[in-house]
Amino acid sequence: MSEMSVNPLFFHRSVRQYEEREVADDTLEHIFRSMQRGSNTGNMQLYSVVLTTDAATKAALSPAHCGQPMVMQAPLVATFCADVARFMHWAALSNADSEAFYNFEMWQSAAIDATIAAERFALQAEHEGLGICYLGTTIYNPQMIINVLELPRGVMPVCTLTVGYPKQEPELQTRLPIGAIVHRDKYHTPADGEVEGFYAETVANPDNQAFVAENNKNSLAAVFTEVRYPRQGNELYSQRLLEALRRQGFLNPLIPNP
Amino acid sequence: MSEMSVNPLFFHRSVRQYEEREVADDTLEHIFRSMQRGSNTGNMQLYSVVLTTDAATKAALSPAHCGQPMVMQAPLVATFCADVARFMHWAALSNADSEAFYNFEMWQSAAIDATIAAERFALQAEHEGLGICYLGTTIYNPQMIINVLELPRGVMPVCTLTVGYPKQEPELQTRLPIGAIVHRDKYHTPADGEVEGFYAETVANPDNQAFVAENNKNSLAAVFTEVRYPRQGNELYSQRLLEALRRQGFLNPLIPNP
Repeated sequence: MSEMSVNPLFFHRSVRQYEEREVADDTLEHIFRSMQRGSNTGNMQLYSVVLTTDAATKAALSPAHCGQPMVMQAPLVATFCADVARFMHWAALSNADSEAFYNFEMWQSAAIDATIAAERFALQAEHEGLGICYLGTTIYNPQMIINVLELPRGVMPVCTLTVGYPKQEPELQTRLPIGAIVHRDKYHTPADGEVEGFYAETVANPDNQAFVAENNKNSLAAVFTEVRYPRQGNELYSQRLLEALRRQGFLNPLIPNP
Repeated sequence: MSEMSVNPLFFHRSVRQYEEREVADDTLEHIFRSMQRGSNTGNMQLYSVVLTTDAATKAALSPAHCGQPMVMQAPLVATFCADVARFMHWAALSNADSEAFYNFEMWQSAAIDATIAAERFALQAEHEGLGICYLGTTIYNPQMIINVLELPRGVMPVCTLTVGYPKQEPELQTRLPIGAIVHRDKYHTPADGEVEGFYAETVANPDNQAFVAENNKNSLAAVFTEVRYPRQGNELYSQRLLEALRRQGFLNPLIPNP
Protein backbone atom coordinates (compact mmCIF):
# COMPACT_ATOMS: atom_id res chain seq x y z
CA MET A 1 0.00 0.00 0.00
CA SER A 2 2.83 2.44 0.77
CA GLU A 3 4.14 1.89 -2.72
CA MET A 4 0.79 2.86 -4.21
CA SER A 5 0.83 6.15 -2.33
CA VAL A 6 4.05 7.32 -3.99
CA ASN A 7 3.61 5.98 -7.53
CA PRO A 8 3.53 9.11 -9.74
CA LEU A 9 1.38 7.25 -12.27
CA PHE A 10 -1.46 7.46 -9.76
CA PHE A 11 -1.18 11.21 -9.07
CA HIS A 12 -0.93 13.18 -12.30
CA ARG A 13 -2.42 16.67 -12.30
CA SER A 14 -1.97 19.19 -15.12
CA VAL A 15 0.16 22.15 -14.04
CA ARG A 16 -0.58 25.47 -15.76
CA GLN A 17 1.54 27.92 -13.72
CA TYR A 18 5.31 27.65 -13.60
CA GLU A 19 8.23 29.19 -11.79
CA GLU A 20 10.70 31.31 -13.75
CA ARG A 21 13.38 28.63 -13.80
CA GLU A 22 14.81 26.84 -16.79
CA VAL A 23 14.97 23.07 -17.13
CA ALA A 24 18.61 22.01 -16.70
CA ASP A 25 20.37 19.99 -19.40
CA ASP A 26 20.99 16.92 -17.23
CA THR A 27 17.29 16.82 -16.36
CA LEU A 28 16.48 16.96 -20.06
CA GLU A 29 18.92 14.08 -20.68
CA HIS A 30 16.88 11.86 -18.33
CA ILE A 31 13.66 12.92 -20.01
CA PHE A 32 15.09 12.14 -23.46
CA ARG A 33 16.24 8.75 -22.27
CA SER A 34 12.72 7.85 -21.12
CA MET A 35 11.18 9.18 -24.34
CA GLN A 36 13.64 7.40 -26.59
CA ARG A 37 13.06 3.98 -25.03
CA GLY A 38 9.32 3.90 -25.82
CA SER A 39 7.56 1.44 -28.10
CA ASN A 40 7.21 2.69 -31.66
CA THR A 41 6.39 1.47 -35.16
CA GLY A 42 8.88 -1.23 -36.19
CA ASN A 43 11.68 0.57 -34.30
CA MET A 44 11.58 3.20 -37.06
CA GLN A 45 10.88 5.93 -34.46
CA LEU A 46 8.56 7.94 -36.70
CA TYR A 47 8.43 11.03 -34.51
CA SER A 48 10.35 14.19 -33.65
CA VAL A 49 10.05 16.71 -30.84
CA VAL A 50 10.71 20.42 -31.22
CA LEU A 51 11.74 22.13 -27.96
CA THR A 52 10.99 25.84 -27.89
CA THR A 53 12.44 28.08 -25.18
CA ASP A 54 12.83 31.29 -27.19
CA ALA A 55 10.25 33.98 -26.24
CA ALA A 56 9.68 35.16 -29.81
CA THR A 57 8.97 31.62 -31.07
CA LYS A 58 6.64 30.97 -28.12
CA ALA A 59 4.80 34.20 -28.95
CA ALA A 60 4.44 33.03 -32.55
CA LEU A 61 3.04 29.66 -31.36
CA SER A 62 0.60 31.23 -28.91
CA PRO A 63 -2.26 32.04 -31.36
CA ALA A 64 -2.23 28.44 -32.65
CA HIS A 65 -2.98 27.44 -29.05
CA CYS A 66 -5.83 29.96 -28.79
CA GLY A 67 -3.70 32.24 -26.59
CA GLN A 68 -3.55 29.84 -23.65
CA PRO A 69 -1.14 31.61 -21.22
CA MET A 70 0.95 28.47 -20.48
CA VAL A 71 2.63 28.78 -23.90
CA MET A 72 4.24 32.10 -23.02
CA GLN A 73 4.68 31.37 -19.31
CA ALA A 74 6.27 27.90 -19.45
CA PRO A 75 10.07 27.84 -19.76
CA LEU A 76 9.77 24.95 -22.24
CA VAL A 77 7.22 24.16 -24.95
CA ALA A 78 7.63 20.69 -26.50
CA THR A 79 5.80 20.03 -29.78
CA PHE A 80 5.60 16.31 -30.61
CA CYS A 81 5.34 15.53 -34.31
CA ALA A 82 4.61 12.53 -36.48
CA ASP A 83 7.72 12.38 -38.69
CA VAL A 84 8.22 10.15 -41.72
CA ALA A 85 10.51 12.70 -43.44
CA ARG A 86 13.68 11.49 -41.70
CA PHE A 87 13.06 7.85 -42.61
CA MET A 88 12.06 8.70 -46.19
CA HIS A 89 15.21 10.82 -46.54
CA TRP A 90 17.26 7.81 -45.47
CA ALA A 91 15.30 5.61 -47.93
CA ALA A 92 16.14 8.04 -50.75
CA LEU A 93 19.84 7.92 -49.85
CA SER A 94 19.57 4.09 -49.89
CA ASN A 95 17.84 3.96 -53.29
CA ALA A 96 14.76 2.49 -51.60
CA ASP A 97 11.12 3.64 -52.01
CA SER A 98 11.22 7.16 -50.55
CA GLU A 99 7.46 7.75 -51.03
CA ALA A 100 6.29 4.55 -49.28
CA PHE A 101 5.22 6.32 -46.06
CA TYR A 102 3.38 9.31 -47.50
CA ASN A 103 -0.11 8.01 -46.77
CA PHE A 104 -2.87 8.09 -44.17
CA GLU A 105 -2.02 4.82 -42.43
CA MET A 106 1.54 5.94 -41.76
CA TRP A 107 0.24 9.28 -40.44
CA GLN A 108 -1.79 7.40 -37.83
CA SER A 109 1.08 5.05 -36.94
CA ALA A 110 3.49 7.97 -36.60
CA ALA A 111 0.95 9.93 -34.53
CA ILE A 112 0.82 6.99 -32.09
CA ASP A 113 4.66 6.99 -31.93
CA ALA A 114 4.61 10.73 -31.19
CA THR A 115 1.95 10.37 -28.46
CA ILE A 116 3.75 7.50 -26.70
CA ALA A 117 6.93 9.62 -26.80
CA ALA A 118 5.04 12.60 -25.34
CA GLU A 119 3.59 10.58 -22.45
CA ARG A 120 7.00 9.11 -21.55
CA PHE A 121 8.49 12.62 -21.74
CA ALA A 122 5.70 13.86 -19.44
CA LEU A 123 6.11 11.06 -16.90
CA GLN A 124 9.87 11.43 -16.63
CA ALA A 125 9.44 15.22 -16.35
CA GLU A 126 7.04 14.69 -13.42
CA HIS A 127 9.51 12.23 -11.90
CA GLU A 128 12.12 15.03 -12.06
CA GLY A 129 9.82 17.42 -10.13
CA LEU A 130 8.48 19.26 -13.17
CA GLY A 131 4.84 19.91 -14.00
CA ILE A 132 3.30 19.50 -17.44
CA CYS A 133 0.14 20.36 -19.34
CA TYR A 134 -0.98 18.84 -22.67
CA LEU A 135 -2.30 21.29 -25.26
CA GLY A 136 -5.06 19.60 -27.27
CA THR A 137 -5.14 22.75 -29.41
CA THR A 138 -2.13 21.37 -31.35
CA ILE A 139 -4.46 19.81 -33.94
CA TYR A 140 -6.86 22.78 -34.14
CA ASN A 141 -4.60 25.06 -36.17
CA PRO A 142 -1.78 22.79 -37.30
CA GLN A 143 -0.80 24.92 -40.30
CA MET A 144 0.15 27.79 -37.98
CA ILE A 145 2.44 25.46 -36.01
CA ILE A 146 3.89 24.01 -39.22
CA ASN A 147 4.75 27.52 -40.39
CA VAL A 148 6.29 28.69 -37.11
CA LEU A 149 8.35 25.53 -36.46
CA GLU A 150 9.21 25.16 -40.19
CA LEU A 151 8.00 21.57 -40.39
CA PRO A 152 8.73 20.03 -43.82
CA ARG A 153 6.51 17.64 -45.82
CA GLY A 154 6.20 14.38 -43.87
CA VAL A 155 6.19 16.10 -40.47
CA MET A 156 2.93 16.98 -38.70
CA PRO A 157 2.27 18.26 -35.14
CA VAL A 158 0.28 15.88 -32.91
CA CYS A 159 0.39 17.17 -29.33
CA THR A 160 2.24 19.73 -27.22
CA LEU A 161 3.46 19.79 -23.63
CA THR A 162 4.17 22.94 -21.65
CA VAL A 163 6.83 22.10 -19.06
CA GLY A 164 8.21 23.88 -15.99
CA TYR A 165 8.64 23.80 -12.22
CA PRO A 166 5.16 23.98 -10.66
CA LYS A 167 3.95 27.21 -9.05
CA GLN A 168 0.70 25.48 -8.03
CA GLU A 169 -0.46 22.08 -6.82
CA PRO A 170 -3.93 21.58 -8.25
CA GLU A 171 -6.40 19.13 -6.72
CA LEU A 172 -6.66 15.74 -8.39
CA GLN A 173 -9.59 15.88 -10.79
CA THR A 174 -12.49 13.44 -10.57
CA ARG A 175 -12.51 10.61 -13.08
CA LEU A 176 -15.30 8.42 -14.42
CA PRO A 177 -15.71 5.12 -12.56
CA ILE A 178 -13.46 2.46 -14.05
CA GLY A 179 -16.56 0.46 -15.08
CA ALA A 180 -17.34 3.23 -17.60
CA ILE A 181 -13.97 2.79 -19.32
CA VAL A 182 -13.13 -0.92 -19.08
CA HIS A 183 -15.10 -3.49 -21.09
CA ARG A 184 -14.74 -7.24 -20.60
CA ASP A 185 -14.29 -9.46 -23.66
CA LYS A 186 -16.43 -7.25 -25.95
CA TYR A 187 -17.73 -3.68 -25.88
CA HIS A 188 -20.68 -3.21 -23.58
CA THR A 189 -23.09 -0.48 -24.70
CA PRO A 190 -24.53 0.90 -21.45
CA ALA A 191 -28.23 1.52 -20.80
CA ASP A 192 -29.42 5.10 -20.13
CA GLY A 193 -29.42 4.61 -16.36
CA GLU A 194 -25.84 3.29 -16.41
CA VAL A 195 -24.66 6.33 -18.37
CA GLU A 196 -26.35 8.66 -15.87
CA GLY A 197 -24.59 6.76 -13.11
CA PHE A 198 -21.19 7.16 -14.81
CA TYR A 199 -21.54 10.97 -14.84
CA ALA A 200 -23.34 11.41 -11.48
CA GLU A 201 -20.21 12.39 -9.52
CA THR A 202 -19.07 14.77 -12.28
CA VAL A 203 -22.49 16.47 -12.36
CA ALA A 204 -22.60 16.76 -8.54
CA ASN A 205 -19.16 18.44 -8.37
CA PRO A 206 -19.64 22.05 -7.08
CA ASP A 207 -17.10 23.49 -9.58
CA ASN A 208 -19.01 21.90 -12.43
CA GLN A 209 -22.33 23.17 -11.08
CA ALA A 210 -20.87 26.71 -10.98
CA PHE A 211 -19.62 26.20 -14.53
CA VAL A 212 -23.17 25.37 -15.74
CA ALA A 213 -24.61 28.46 -14.02
CA GLU A 214 -21.89 30.81 -15.39
CA ASN A 215 -22.59 29.62 -18.92
CA ASN A 216 -26.39 29.89 -18.60
CA LYS A 217 -26.87 26.31 -19.70
CA ASN A 218 -29.29 23.65 -18.50
CA SER A 219 -26.75 20.87 -18.17
CA LEU A 220 -23.02 20.19 -17.88
CA ALA A 221 -23.17 18.18 -21.12
CA ALA A 222 -24.49 21.30 -22.86
CA VAL A 223 -21.52 23.35 -21.59
CA PHE A 224 -19.16 20.80 -23.13
CA THR A 225 -20.96 20.28 -26.45
CA GLU A 226 -22.25 23.84 -27.02
CA VAL A 227 -19.67 26.12 -25.33
CA ARG A 228 -16.31 24.36 -24.79
CA TYR A 229 -16.32 21.93 -27.77
CA PRO A 230 -19.20 23.04 -30.02
CA ARG A 231 -19.93 21.17 -33.24
CA GLN A 232 -19.23 24.19 -35.49
CA GLY A 233 -15.74 24.67 -34.03
CA ASN A 234 -14.97 20.95 -34.20
CA GLU A 235 -15.98 20.91 -37.87
CA LEU A 236 -13.86 23.97 -38.66
CA TYR A 237 -10.85 22.40 -36.90
CA SER A 238 -11.52 19.14 -38.77
CA GLN A 239 -11.25 21.00 -42.08
CA ARG A 240 -8.01 22.69 -41.03
CA LEU A 241 -6.53 19.42 -39.79
CA LEU A 242 -7.38 17.57 -43.00
CA GLU A 243 -6.03 20.41 -45.14
CA ALA A 244 -2.74 20.39 -43.17
CA LEU A 245 -2.51 16.60 -43.49
CA ARG A 246 -2.98 16.94 -47.25
CA ARG A 247 -0.26 19.62 -47.50
CA GLN A 248 2.18 17.55 -45.43
CA GLY A 249 1.69 14.57 -47.77
CA PHE A 250 -0.46 12.27 -45.61
CA LEU A 251 -3.87 12.17 -47.36
CA ASN A 252 -2.62 9.90 -50.11
CA PRO A 253 -4.18 7.99 -51.82
CA LEU A 254 -7.82 8.71 -51.31
CA ILE A 255 -9.02 12.06 -50.34
CA PRO A 256 -9.57 14.84 -52.86
CA ASN A 257 -8.65 18.39 -51.98
CA PRO A 258 -11.64 19.89 -50.14
CA MET B 1 22.94 7.28 -10.90
CA SER B 2 21.63 4.26 -9.01
CA GLU B 3 18.14 5.61 -9.54
CA MET B 4 18.71 5.75 -13.29
CA SER B 5 19.64 2.11 -13.37
CA VAL B 6 16.28 1.01 -11.95
CA ASN B 7 13.89 3.47 -13.60
CA PRO B 8 11.63 1.25 -15.77
CA LEU B 9 11.09 4.16 -18.17
CA PHE B 10 14.70 3.66 -19.28
CA PHE B 11 14.44 -0.10 -19.90
CA HIS B 12 11.39 -0.99 -21.94
CA ARG B 13 11.62 -4.00 -24.25
CA SER B 14 8.66 -5.54 -26.06
CA VAL B 15 7.83 -9.01 -24.74
CA ARG B 16 6.29 -11.45 -27.23
CA GLN B 17 6.33 -14.74 -25.26
CA TYR B 18 4.33 -15.16 -22.08
CA GLU B 19 3.90 -17.67 -19.28
CA GLU B 20 0.57 -19.44 -18.91
CA ARG B 21 -0.52 -17.39 -15.94
CA GLU B 22 -3.46 -15.02 -15.71
CA VAL B 23 -3.17 -11.42 -14.57
CA ALA B 24 -4.68 -11.17 -11.07
CA ASP B 25 -7.53 -8.74 -10.35
CA ASP B 26 -5.59 -6.65 -7.82
CA THR B 27 -2.78 -6.20 -10.35
CA LEU B 28 -5.35 -5.04 -12.88
CA GLU B 29 -6.74 -2.56 -10.32
CA HIS B 30 -3.31 -0.89 -10.11
CA ILE B 31 -3.04 -0.81 -13.88
CA PHE B 32 -6.49 0.77 -14.19
CA ARG B 33 -5.61 3.38 -11.59
CA SER B 34 -2.54 4.44 -13.58
CA MET B 35 -4.49 4.48 -16.85
CA GLN B 36 -7.41 6.43 -15.42
CA ARG B 37 -5.24 9.24 -14.03
CA GLY B 38 -3.75 10.20 -17.42
CA SER B 39 -4.19 13.50 -19.22
CA ASN B 40 -7.09 13.52 -21.66
CA THR B 41 -9.26 15.89 -23.67
CA GLY B 42 -11.04 18.32 -21.31
CA ASN B 43 -11.38 15.57 -18.68
CA MET B 44 -14.00 13.98 -20.97
CA GLN B 45 -11.98 10.73 -21.11
CA LEU B 46 -12.83 9.97 -24.72
CA TYR B 47 -11.52 6.41 -24.71
CA SER B 48 -12.44 2.85 -23.72
CA VAL B 49 -10.41 -0.32 -23.36
CA VAL B 50 -11.72 -3.79 -24.18
CA LEU B 51 -9.95 -6.59 -22.27
CA THR B 52 -10.09 -9.94 -24.01
CA THR B 53 -9.12 -13.13 -22.18
CA ASP B 54 -11.51 -15.56 -23.88
CA ALA B 55 -9.74 -17.92 -26.33
CA ALA B 56 -12.53 -17.80 -28.92
CA THR B 57 -12.53 -14.00 -29.04
CA LYS B 58 -8.73 -13.92 -29.24
CA ALA B 59 -8.91 -16.37 -32.15
CA ALA B 60 -11.41 -14.07 -33.87
CA LEU B 61 -9.09 -11.07 -33.36
CA SER B 62 -6.01 -12.91 -34.60
CA PRO B 63 -6.51 -12.40 -38.39
CA ALA B 64 -6.96 -8.63 -37.88
CA HIS B 65 -3.46 -8.69 -36.38
CA CYS B 66 -2.08 -10.66 -39.34
CA GLY B 67 -1.88 -13.83 -37.24
CA GLN B 68 0.84 -12.56 -34.90
CA PRO B 69 1.14 -15.37 -32.32
CA MET B 70 1.09 -13.02 -29.28
CA VAL B 71 -2.66 -12.53 -29.71
CA MET B 72 -3.43 -16.17 -29.01
CA GLN B 73 -0.57 -16.72 -26.59
CA ALA B 74 -0.97 -13.72 -24.26
CA PRO B 75 -3.35 -14.21 -21.35
CA LEU B 76 -4.70 -10.69 -21.90
CA VAL B 77 -5.32 -8.66 -25.08
CA ALA B 78 -6.21 -5.01 -24.41
CA THR B 79 -7.72 -3.05 -27.32
CA PHE B 80 -7.64 0.73 -26.72
CA CYS B 81 -10.35 2.66 -28.53
CA ALA B 82 -11.20 6.27 -29.25
CA ASP B 83 -14.71 6.58 -27.80
CA VAL B 84 -17.08 9.54 -28.19
CA ALA B 85 -20.18 7.31 -27.99
CA ARG B 86 -20.35 7.35 -24.18
CA PHE B 87 -20.12 11.14 -23.98
CA MET B 88 -22.61 11.64 -26.83
CA HIS B 89 -25.03 9.23 -25.13
CA TRP B 90 -24.80 11.37 -21.99
CA ALA B 91 -25.30 14.52 -24.11
CA ALA B 92 -28.47 13.00 -25.59
CA LEU B 93 -29.81 12.20 -22.11
CA SER B 94 -29.04 15.83 -21.13
CA ASN B 95 -30.80 17.33 -24.19
CA ALA B 96 -27.44 18.69 -25.38
CA ASP B 97 -25.92 18.36 -28.88
CA SER B 98 -25.39 14.61 -29.18
CA GLU B 99 -23.77 14.85 -32.65
CA ALA B 100 -21.15 17.46 -31.74
CA PHE B 101 -18.25 15.01 -31.56
CA TYR B 102 -18.89 12.97 -34.70
CA ASN B 103 -16.11 14.55 -36.76
CA PHE B 104 -12.46 14.11 -37.71
CA GLU B 105 -10.98 16.49 -35.15
CA MET B 106 -12.64 14.60 -32.29
CA TRP B 107 -11.39 11.31 -33.73
CA GLN B 108 -7.83 12.58 -33.48
CA SER B 109 -8.32 14.00 -29.98
CA ALA B 110 -9.90 10.76 -28.78
CA ALA B 111 -7.12 8.71 -30.42
CA ILE B 112 -4.57 10.72 -28.38
CA ASP B 113 -6.61 10.02 -25.21
CA ALA B 114 -6.60 6.30 -26.05
CA THR B 115 -2.84 6.23 -26.73
CA ILE B 116 -1.94 8.04 -23.50
CA ALA B 117 -4.17 5.55 -21.65
CA ALA B 118 -2.43 2.63 -23.39
CA GLU B 119 1.05 3.85 -22.49
CA ARG B 120 0.11 4.37 -18.83
CA PHE B 121 -1.48 0.90 -18.82
CA ALA B 122 1.76 -0.51 -20.32
CA LEU B 123 4.06 1.24 -17.84
CA GLN B 124 2.09 0.17 -14.79
CA ALA B 125 1.92 -3.38 -16.19
CA GLU B 126 5.73 -3.39 -16.51
CA HIS B 127 5.99 -1.99 -12.97
CA GLU B 128 3.92 -5.02 -11.83
CA GLY B 129 6.35 -7.44 -13.50
CA LEU B 130 4.34 -7.99 -16.66
CA GLY B 131 5.61 -7.72 -20.23
CA ILE B 132 3.77 -6.00 -23.05
CA CYS B 133 3.87 -5.65 -26.82
CA TYR B 134 2.05 -3.01 -28.89
CA LEU B 135 0.29 -4.26 -32.02
CA GLY B 136 0.49 -1.58 -34.70
CA THR B 137 -1.73 -3.82 -36.84
CA THR B 138 -4.75 -2.45 -34.92
CA ILE B 139 -5.27 0.22 -37.59
CA TYR B 140 -4.60 -2.08 -40.56
CA ASN B 141 -7.88 -3.95 -40.47
CA PRO B 142 -10.01 -1.96 -38.03
CA GLN B 143 -13.35 -3.18 -39.41
CA MET B 144 -12.50 -6.74 -38.39
CA ILE B 145 -11.79 -5.57 -34.83
CA ILE B 146 -14.96 -3.45 -34.80
CA ASN B 147 -16.98 -6.51 -35.79
CA VAL B 148 -15.39 -8.90 -33.27
CA LEU B 149 -15.51 -6.51 -30.30
CA GLU B 150 -18.94 -5.13 -31.34
CA LEU B 151 -17.81 -1.51 -31.29
CA PRO B 152 -20.73 0.87 -31.92
CA ARG B 153 -20.69 4.11 -33.95
CA GLY B 154 -18.40 6.61 -32.21
CA VAL B 155 -15.93 3.93 -31.08
CA MET B 156 -12.81 3.10 -33.10
CA PRO B 157 -9.77 0.90 -32.27
CA VAL B 158 -6.43 2.77 -32.02
CA CYS B 159 -3.83 0.42 -30.57
CA THR B 160 -3.59 -2.96 -28.82
CA LEU B 161 -1.38 -4.35 -26.07
CA THR B 162 -0.73 -8.02 -25.51
CA VAL B 163 0.02 -8.53 -21.81
CA GLY B 164 1.41 -11.38 -19.72
CA TYR B 165 4.24 -12.56 -17.48
CA PRO B 166 7.44 -12.63 -19.58
CA LYS B 167 8.86 -15.93 -20.77
CA GLN B 168 11.83 -14.09 -22.35
CA GLU B 169 14.01 -11.10 -21.61
CA PRO B 170 14.92 -9.62 -24.99
CA GLU B 171 17.95 -7.37 -25.46
CA LEU B 172 17.33 -3.65 -25.42
CA GLN B 173 17.01 -2.52 -29.03
CA THR B 174 19.23 0.18 -30.49
CA ARG B 175 17.70 3.62 -30.87
CA LEU B 176 18.56 6.56 -33.11
CA PRO B 177 20.85 9.14 -31.47
CA ILE B 178 18.83 11.71 -29.56
CA GLY B 179 20.05 14.41 -31.95
CA ALA B 180 18.02 12.77 -34.71
CA ILE B 181 14.79 13.15 -32.70
CA VAL B 182 15.13 16.40 -30.71
CA HIS B 183 15.07 19.75 -32.51
CA ARG B 184 15.89 23.05 -30.79
CA ASP B 185 13.55 26.01 -31.25
CA LYS B 186 12.53 25.04 -34.82
CA TYR B 187 12.70 21.89 -36.96
CA HIS B 188 16.15 21.20 -38.34
CA THR B 189 16.14 19.43 -41.71
CA PRO B 190 19.33 17.36 -41.70
CA ALA B 191 21.83 17.21 -44.56
CA ASP B 192 22.43 13.86 -46.32
CA GLY B 193 25.56 13.15 -44.28
CA GLU B 194 23.73 13.77 -41.01
CA VAL B 195 20.97 11.34 -41.98
CA GLU B 196 23.55 8.68 -42.85
CA GLY B 197 25.11 9.28 -39.43
CA PHE B 198 21.76 8.85 -37.66
CA TYR B 199 21.29 5.37 -39.17
CA ALA B 200 24.93 4.22 -39.09
CA GLU B 201 24.58 2.15 -35.89
CA THR B 202 21.31 0.61 -37.10
CA VAL B 203 22.89 -0.37 -40.43
CA ALA B 204 25.97 -1.83 -38.70
CA ASN B 205 23.87 -4.02 -36.37
CA PRO B 206 24.57 -7.70 -37.26
CA ASP B 207 20.88 -8.71 -36.88
CA ASN B 208 19.93 -6.02 -39.36
CA GLN B 209 22.67 -7.06 -41.77
CA ALA B 210 21.35 -10.64 -41.65
CA PHE B 211 17.85 -9.26 -42.24
CA VAL B 212 19.00 -7.51 -45.44
CA ALA B 213 20.68 -10.70 -46.72
CA GLU B 214 17.63 -12.91 -45.94
CA ASN B 215 15.38 -10.57 -47.88
CA ASN B 216 17.72 -10.28 -50.87
CA LYS B 217 17.72 -6.50 -50.71
CA ASN B 218 20.53 -4.00 -51.23
CA SER B 219 19.84 -1.93 -48.12
CA LEU B 220 18.08 -2.02 -44.76
CA ALA B 221 15.89 0.90 -45.85
CA ALA B 222 14.70 -1.25 -48.77
CA VAL B 223 13.70 -4.07 -46.39
CA PHE B 224 11.57 -1.59 -44.44
CA THR B 225 9.99 0.23 -47.37
CA GLU B 226 9.64 -2.68 -49.81
CA VAL B 227 9.16 -5.79 -47.60
CA ARG B 228 8.00 -4.90 -44.08
CA TYR B 229 6.02 -1.71 -44.79
CA PRO B 230 5.64 -1.51 -48.58
CA ARG B 231 3.76 1.36 -50.20
CA GLN B 232 1.04 -0.86 -51.68
CA GLY B 233 0.18 -2.36 -48.29
CA ASN B 234 0.22 1.03 -46.60
CA GLU B 235 -2.17 2.39 -49.20
CA LEU B 236 -4.52 -0.58 -48.86
CA TYR B 237 -4.52 -0.17 -45.06
CA SER B 238 -5.09 3.57 -45.50
CA GLN B 239 -8.24 2.82 -47.50
CA ARG B 240 -9.51 0.36 -44.90
CA LEU B 241 -8.79 2.78 -42.07
CA LEU B 242 -10.59 5.66 -43.77
CA GLU B 243 -13.55 3.44 -44.61
CA ALA B 244 -13.81 2.27 -40.98
CA LEU B 245 -13.56 5.89 -39.76
CA ARG B 246 -16.39 6.82 -42.11
CA ARG B 247 -18.59 3.96 -40.88
CA GLN B 248 -17.93 4.80 -37.22
CA GLY B 249 -19.03 8.42 -37.85
CA PHE B 250 -15.70 10.25 -37.80
CA LEU B 251 -15.18 11.46 -41.38
CA ASN B 252 -17.73 14.24 -41.02
CA PRO B 253 -17.87 16.82 -42.58
CA LEU B 254 -15.52 16.60 -45.50
CA ILE B 255 -14.61 13.34 -47.01
CA PRO B 256 -16.75 11.61 -49.61
CA ASN B 257 -17.17 7.87 -49.56
CA PRO B 258 -14.25 6.38 -51.51
